[in-house]
Amino acid sequence: MKRIAIDMDEVMANTVQHCLDLYNADFEKHVTLADLHGLGLFDAIAAEHHLHVCRYFESEMFFANIQVMEGSQAAIQELAKKYEVFVVSAAMDVPKSFSAKFEWLGVHFPFLPPGRIVFCGDKSIIAADYLVDDNVRNLLSFGGEGILFTAHHNIRETRFRRVNNWPEVCALFLS
Amino acid sequence: MKRIAIDMDEVMANTVQHCLDLYNADFEKHVTLADLHGLGLFDAIAAEHHLHVCRYFESEMFFANIQVMEGSQAAIQELAKKYEVFVVSAAMDVPKSFSAKFEWLGVHFPFLPPGRIVFCGDKSIIAADYLVDDNVRNLLSFGGEGILFTAHHNIRETRFRRVNNWPEVCALFLS
Repeated sequence: MKRIAIDMDEVMANTVQHCLDLYNADFEKHVTLADLHGLGLFDAIAAEHHLHVCRYFESEMFFANIQVMEGSQAAIQELAKKYEVFVVSAAMDVPKSFSAKFEWLGVHFPFLPPGRIVFCGDKSIIAADYLVDDNVRNLLSFGGEGILFTAHHNIRETRFRRVNNWPEVCALFLS
Repeated sequence: MKRIAIDMDEVMANTVQHCLDLYNADFEKHVTLADLHGLGLFDAIAAEHHLHVCRYFESEMFFANIQVMEGSQAAIQELAKKYEVFVVSAAMDVPKSFSAKFEWLGVHFPFLPPGRIVFCGDKSIIAADYLVDDNVRNLLSFGGEGILFTAHHNIRETRFRRVNNWPEVCALFLS
């Protein structure tokens, strides 16, 4: 059985959208994901607000309230019938997020066994056939085939097979 | 540069000894590591105390107070000059331990970058040349060469290269 490793933020979890919702509410702004075309989150936020936004990630509640990426639950449940599915999240950047991320997965993806969850930094440590990730740095260091999940910041990237949403992930792996 | 993945409990951290210290104090017992020869921790503890001992792992303080395995700090610092060293801990069994384990590593192994820490369940997900681990189940599922670090429970195991302590790890990898 082949193995698919799946990234969490921006692939299973709509993390940047949640950040923008909080940011827009806090500063009466109207930044949308479309405004981040080709940019990272912090490129679209005024420098004087960076520290404020960084602090969102220090709250356990921040992670608990993130929305699931549309279609990801049903798709991953289908993938798990034909592949070994692992969730691989680069949680070491935000050590306070471990427990909250683990609980979030239990709430939204209860069919995934805890033993299939991995928190790491450098994704070159992951032994899998495929990695579905929005982060080019992770795909470059990964030893298997990297599949780029479209996100605002990677829109200009051309080096990987690209999937734009969860129906496209299913089409790639299940058709 | 070859890569060594190193398990945490019973290899870098003297976890079972700490458990026994608490257990002996709580129940006026005198169980030693030697009494666990060929046994798991719970084989040497009366069944009516299992739940009490399980609860040790629910406390963040439990992890903070675990002693470092003798010789591991200097040895890992030397290994890190010639190998990519990753710490790979099966923390998913005890989700409350993530932050405490991460902090413990920062205190006792400050030279290891956070990006080289991995919390996982199934160690078949680890891409490395070697895995130094006391747990036979982990070595069996690992794709590289498993090196068995001697612990009370694995004393009868013969299927892997064995190292009895950190000087022997250094002799194996650095001589």
